[in-house]
Amino acid sequence: MDKITPRNLQGIMELLPNDQIVFNGMKDIIRKNFESFGFLPLDQPVLENSAVLLAKAGGDTEKQIYRFNKGDNDICMRFDLTVPLAKYVAMNYENLTFPFRRYQINKVYRGERPQHGRFREFYQCDIDIIGKDFLSLIYDAEIPSIMYNVFKELNIGKFIIFISNRKLLLGLVESLNLKNISAEIFRVIDKFDKIGLENVKLTLIDDYKIATDSVKILTDFIQISGSIDEKINKLKSLKINSDIFHTGLNELQEVVKYMRAFGVPDDYFDINLTIVRGLDYYTGTIYETMLSGFEKLGSICSGGRFDNLAEFYTDKKLPGVGMSIGLTRLFDQLRENDLIKTVKKSISDVVVLPMGEYQTEAIFIANEIRESGLNAEVYFEESKMKSKILYADRNKVPYIIIIGEDEVKNNFVTLKNLSTFEQVQVDIKSAINIIKNN
Amino acid sequence: MDKITPRNLQGIMELLPNDQIVFNGMKDIIRKNFESFGFLPLDQPVLENSAVLLAKAGGDTEKQIYRFNKGDNDICMRFDLTVPLAKYVAMNYENLTFPFRRYQINKVYRGERPQHGRFREFYQCDIDIIGKDFLSLIYDAEIPSIMYNVFKELNIGKFIIFISNRKLLLGLVESLNLKNISAEIFRVIDKFDKIGLENVKLTLIDDYKIATDSVKILTDFIQISGSIDEKINKLKSLKINSDIFHTGLNELQEVVKYMRAFGVPDDYFDINLTIVRGLDYYTGTIYETMLSGFEKLGSICSGGRFDNLAEFYTDKKLPGVGMSIGLTRLFDQLRENDLIKTVKKSISDVVVLPMGEYQTEAIFIANEIRESGLNAEVYFEESKMKSKILYADRNKVPYIIIIGEDEVKNNFVTLKNLSTFEQVQVDIKSAINIIKNN
Repeated sequence: MDKITPRNLQGIMELLPNDQIVFNGMKDIIRKNFESFGFLPLDQPVLENSAVLLAKAGGDTEKQIYRFNKGDNDICMRFDLTVPLAKYVAMNYENLTFPFRRYQINKVYRGERPQHGRFREFYQCDIDIIGKDFLSLIYDAEIPSIMYNVFKELNIGKFIIFISNRKLLLGLVESLNLKNISAEIFRVIDKFDKIGLENVKLTLIDDYKIATDSVKILTDFIQISGSIDEKINKLKSLKINSDIFHTGLNELQEVVKYMRAFGVPDDYFDINLTIVRGLDYYTGTIYETMLSGFEKLGSICSGGRFDNLAEFYTDKKLPGVGMSIGLTRLFDQLRENDLIKTVKKSISDVVVLPMGEYQTEAIFIANEIRESGLNAEVYFEESKMKSKILYADRNKVPYIIIIGEDEVKNNFVTLKNLSTFEQVQVDIKSAINIIKNN
Repeated sequence: MDKITPRNLQGIMELLPNDQIVFNGMKDIIRKNFESFGFLPLDQPVLENSAVLLAKAGGDTEKQIYRFNKGDNDICMRFDLTVPLAKYVAMNYENLTFPFRRYQINKVYRGERPQHGRFREFYQCDIDIIGKDFLSLIYDAEIPSIMYNVFKELNIGKFIIFISNRKLLLGLVESLNLKNISAEIFRVIDKFDKIGLENVKLTLIDDYKIATDSVKILTDFIQISGSIDEKINKLKSLKINSDIFHTGLNELQEVVKYMRAFGVPDDYFDINLTIVRGLDYYTGTIYETMLSGFEKLGSICSGGRFDNLAEFYTDKKLPGVGMSIGLTRLFDQLRENDLIKTVKKSISDVVVLPMGEYQTEAIFIANEIRESGLNAEVYFEESKMKSKILYADRNKVPYIIIIGEDEVKNNFVTLKNLSTFEQVQVDIKSAINIIKNN
C-alpha cells in the first residue's frame, strides 16, 4: 500500500509526552490559581457564525481568520477569547450574575504566516471581570495580583508586572492641545523600547510637527523614574491642567494601594509610563508583564480596563478588566531558554513489572497502589528485564516494583528507585510510603 | 450603532457557568482515572493537513469533515482522535516508548446535520495502548477496567460493560462457508437490538439466501445466555470447526479472567455476542457500555482491539486496544435525564463581603482563606447586603463572610451558611475549619 508521509501543518505545536506533561503542569497551576480567586470556568465553542464573530473585527485580524462555508453556514474559528466572551455575556445577560468573573484556558486560531515563536493554533489563558453598568476599581488591582500568584507558582524566575493608566497620557496630550493626533503620539511612545528616546523625540518633532517644549513635556513624562511611590509623587507634582489626567492618577494610586493589599511585593510590580497597549479598546488601567533578563520575549501577560465589552451586540453597558497569558508561546520560549523547573515529570509514580506468570499478582499490587492515591501501571509484555526497566526510565517514572516467585511466596515487593538504583524488599504498604515520601 | 444579534451555530453546546462546573468535574474525574493507570497525556492540534488526515477516510466521514483552504494549505479539522494518534505514532515512532499508553480528552469536529443529541463540536475521551509488533492480551482487560473505574466514580448509576470478540462471529461464519458475505451478516446482527430476532432471521434467509440451518446456528449463537461463565461454557460446547473461533474464545476467556483481577465485579460487565462494532478496524476484543435503564441512549463508551493502527502512514506493525467516551453527548443526555449527582457546584468556597470602607481588611481575610487551600473571592461593588448575598447564592457558593466595623474591631468574622442560614461570629481560623468540614 502507498503510504502517506505523516506530518504537521507549519506553525503548529505538537509535543512529545514528556513535554506535554510539563505543559499540562503549567496549565494546571494557572487553572488552580484562577479558581482559587473564584473565577468561573467557560469552555466555549471554537466554531462561530462569521457574522457574529466578525461584528467588530477588521484589518489584519480579519485576514488571519480561518473562515469557511459548510452547508448554509458561514463559519469562523475563534481568533481570541474576548469576542466570544462579549457574545456570551450579551447572549446570557439575564442568566449571569454580575460582576461576572470568568476564566477560559483554550486554544485560538490565526492563519498567520508561520515564523519563529508564532503559532497558528495556541492557548490563551484569560481572566476577566465584567460589571453591569459599573465595576469597582479594586478589581483593577485584583487581576494583576492573580497573575502575580500564577507566575510565582510557575517558578519561571523573576518577573515584573508593569502598570499604567491610559488616562494619564490621554490627559497629558489633551493639556498640550494635541488630542487630534493622540493616536499617532501613542504609537510613537509605544515604540520607545525599540527605537530609544532620541528617535521618539525626532519622530514627534519631524513627522508630527510637535513643538519642542511639548515634546519635552511628553518625553519627561515617559521618563519619570524612581520607586513606585516616587513616581506617583512626581506625577502629582506635574501640575497638568486636565481632569482626565488627575482621574487617571487617582486610579493608578488606588490600584497600587490595593495590589499591595492583595500581597504583591513592590519588587514584583512597577509603574511604567511607556506602556500604551495598541488596542483602542482599553480605557483605564493597562498591564504588561516582563520576565527579568528576558525582556526580548516581550510581554508575557497583558491586558487592561475597558468601558464596554459588548457594544457590537448589546446596548447594555458592560465595563470590565482582564489579563491574558499566551501560554503556547510562553512555553515555547521558556523551553528554548531552559527556564522551566517543574516537579512532576512522569504520570505514573511506579511501574509494576511481573516476572514469569505473576501478572495477576502484579495487577493486585497495582490496584492497591492506586487505591492509596498514587498512579501505577503494570508492564505486561514478555521481554527482558532490561527492556522493562528501560520502559520505566524513558517515561521518567521514578520507581519500579518487581513481582516474581520470591515476592509472592514471601509476601513482599522489590522496590527500586531508578535515580539512586537503591533496591529494597518490603511489604506493599511500606513501598507505598517510600514512594509517597520521595 | 447597529447591533449584531449574538447567537451560536446550531449543534453547538455552550454551557452556563453552573453547568460548566459540573461538566469540568466529570472531565476531571475521567482524567484522574486515566492518569492513575499511567496514561500519558496528548493534546494534539485540531488543524491537520487534509492529505494526512484523510489518508484513510472515505464515505460519510469525509462528507462531514470541515475542510478549507488558507494560503497554500488544504486544511481539515480533526473528526476523531484515532487518526491523529496514528499520525503521531508513525511520526514519532523513534521517540516513543512502547507499549505507548496515551489518553486524549479533546474536542473533535463533524459537520453533521444538527439533530437532538448530536453535536458538531464535541468532546471525546480516548485511551489507547499501542504495541510495537505485538501487544499482550492483558491490555484488552485493562482498558475496560479503567472505564469501570471512571463510570463508578462518575456516579451516574448502574452500567454494564459488554465485551465480545470479533473472531467468534468471524470463525462461526467461516465454519458455515459464509465468509464471502460476512460483512452483510455482521450488519444484520448489529441491528438485532433494533429489529429483533425474527427480522434478523427473515433478513438472513430472504435477503442473503442463507440456509435455515445455518441461520439457526447464527441466531442460537447470538442468543447464548446465562452468567459470564455459563456463556463461556456454552461457547466451548458448540463444537465449531474453526481455529479463529477458538482463538477468539480463548481470548475472551483471558479477558474475563483479567478483568476480574483488575477488580471489575461480575455485575458490571458481561459477554454480549450481538456486539459487532461497525468498523472493519477492530480485529479481536470489542466493547460497548450501556447505562442500565437507559439503553435507549445507546453505547456510552465503546472500542476494541485492532491489528494495525497506522498502516496508511507506516510499514511498522502497531497493534493496539482502546475505548472512547463521547462526553458532550453523554453529559447532554445525563442532564436531560437528571442523572448527574455531583458534589462540587461552585468554584468559590466562600465570598467575602466588605461593609463600608473595609475592603482592605476583606482582601486580607480572602488572602488568608486562599492560603489555607480554599477558593475565595471578595465582592467589591457597593450595593445592598441583599444583592451581595444574592450574588453568592446565584453562584451556589455555600458560605459568605462579612467584614465590617465590629468584625475588624473585635478581630472576628461573621460566617453565614447560605443553605442553613446559620450565622456565627468566630476567628478566621475557626471559620476556615467550618468551611473545610462542611
